[in-house]
Amino acid sequence: MAKIVESVPNFSEGKDKAKIERIISVFSKHPNIKLLSYEPDSDYNRTVVTLIGEPEPMIQALLEFIGVVSQEIDLNFHHGEHPRMGAVDVIPFVPIEEVTLKDCVEYAKRLAQLANEKYDIPVFLYAEAASAPERIMLPDIRKSEFEGMKEKIKDPIWHPDYGKPEIHPTFGVVAIGARHPLIAYNIDLDTADEKIANSIAKAIRKSSGGFQYIQAGSAYLEKRGHVQVTMNILDYKKNPIYRIFETVKMEAKRYQITVTGAEIVGLVPKDALVKSLEYYFSVFFIPLSFKEIDVDTLVEKATKYLMLRDFDKYKIIEFNL
Amino acid sequence: MAKIVESVPNFSEGKDKAKIERIISVFSKHPNIKLLSYEPDSDYNRTVVTLIGEPEPMIQALLEFIGVVSQEIDLNFHHGEHPRMGAVDVIPFVPIEEVTLKDCVEYAKRLAQLANEKYDIPVFLYAEAASAPERIMLPDIRKSEFEGMKEKIKDPIWHPDYGKPEIHPTFGVVAIGARHPLIAYNIDLDTADEKIANSIAKAIRKSSGGFQYIQAGSAYLEKRGHVQVTMNILDYKKNPIYRIFETVKMEAKRYQITVTGAEIVGLVPKDALVKSLEYYFSVFFIPLSFKEIDVDTLVEKATKYLMLRDFDKYKIIEFNL
Repeated sequence: MAKIVESVPNFSEGKDKAKIERIISVFSKHPNIKLLSYEPDSDYNRTVVTLIGEPEPMIQALLEFIGVVSQEIDLNFHHGEHPRMGAVDVIPFVPIEEVTLKDCVEYAKRLAQLANEKYDIPVFLYAEAASAPERIMLPDIRKSEFEGMKEKIKDPIWHPDYGKPEIHPTFGVVAIGARHPLIAYNIDLDTADEKIANSIAKAIRKSSGGFQYIQAGSAYLEKRGHVQVTMNILDYKKNPIYRIFETVKMEAKRYQITVTGAEIVGLVPKDALVKSLEYYFSVFFIPLSFKEIDVDTLVEKATKYLMLRDFDKYKIIEFNL
Repeated sequence: MAKIVESVPNFSEGKDKAKIERIISVFSKHPNIKLLSYEPDSDYNRTVVTLIGEPEPMIQALLEFIGVVSQEIDLNFHHGEHPRMGAVDVIPFVPIEEVTLKDCVEYAKRLAQLANEKYDIPVFLYAEAASAPERIMLPDIRKSEFEGMKEKIKDPIWHPDYGKPEIHPTFGVVAIGARHPLIAYNIDLDTADEKIANSIAKAIRKSSGGFQYIQAGSAYLEKRGHVQVTMNILDYKKNPIYRIFETVKMEAKRYQITVTGAEIVGLVPKDALVKSLEYYFSVFFIPLSFKEIDVDTLVEKATKYLMLRDFDKYKIIEFNL
């Protein structure tokens, strides 16, 4: 099986369609990586790109991408609602198949060194690749943004991991790092009362005492007329989907409401589904082996046991290759 | 309703019964505090005492207790398996009724100042009362123990919160602090396979990604012939008993085993039972008000819904007053 890595870089342009297309076109030239999506946001004035592919081509494509962006975007003329410190703001490497998080740290360091050598852009390593505790969280690095970074970077505490302590005059700085796959996951509740979704979110999220790798809140879906518990699962191996799903069902009972469905926003690694279906297969004595399971059965079982709606195989990262 | 605080001090003597009795007798002189238990451990060579009572008498009794211990115990001649840094090693204040954790921080500071003034013993404030992040965890303060504290205390980082940076020559130093009530809670599994208890413990405990205020492991009960998930609940308001109980039941299903019971080791605050029974009363539409509930009903419902075995009203802190 091939080594597969995901990357979700973003760049600081969300309005100028021609410019966005020129930047994105870098990725179509590389046969061994695949552009899964790109989502320009005009309020934020940034575009988030989702890529998967083999590690070496991914590093080369991202290097080229940084080069093109450095020619297209001058942050001195950039305004948008989302905080940013670079023309390319952040590049995470995410392990998908036959690749570890530690491998991704190495890819991050390789790309960081190359980008600095080739374009003279200062690089901060972040998340799993961080060189100090205060560099783990992206918002801590990004605080003061492009405008404040000119001074901040001179402080020895904030010298970049690669490059001299001076921002690139038009590009700024970039954070490159490695992290676990993140799953954006929402659970539908049979009520329009957002207070209930909020109470349940509090029970499960880290910030109020719940599971360590869960961020959660509430949302009201106007078109559908019900609320959701809306989540990021930051480490599905430590906090598998089924455990969150079952805990939310358990908490919902005290409000006499039921869970009517759930959804994955964006993509999910196959392994995250397998890790959760293993639970239900054990509970319900289902004699299926995950080594042999075909994709349609996987989708069918995930739909049944995790009650996923609007779900098909293209939501699974690996089936986009 | 009276203000009630719990304290669980320990002192460094677990073998000499006459000495232990002389020390313990301090508490029987105070009519407004109650000695719930004391447990000498000869291997550890320490004794843990559980007290409840009104805050002011509690502070006075503990001050007297420190005085008596300082005359009875010389740590230069003390050996035991449990790490220790003082003749009285640690004194936590725990809010039970009409008292907040913040109040308990004040009681800790009051006692710390009095003990230092009266007996010239250096005091470290710890847990909720800590004056610096590295003083929150007792093991961090205690590292290097009585023998190493002579040098450690001279380091400005480890100057005591009360007193000069010199240990008391025979007593050593003491940590005084405030913390939430801690519930020692075990759940019985219908299996003798400790691996299963361990997997479930991993799913729920903080250190492997679970709930923030749960410490958990496994234990095999030889006499009863089954395993337990054995836990400390460090904050029952953030991680209520029912949530842990239901999550363990859910996880157990994948091993085709059932939860057969549970037990509270030591004491539980009434509020911790109420907070969990509220869940079951909502789920099962039980129209009982906790304002009016009598103690026998409380015990009956806790036994039924939380499946508590060997449980009676004297396990509830408040009914010992």
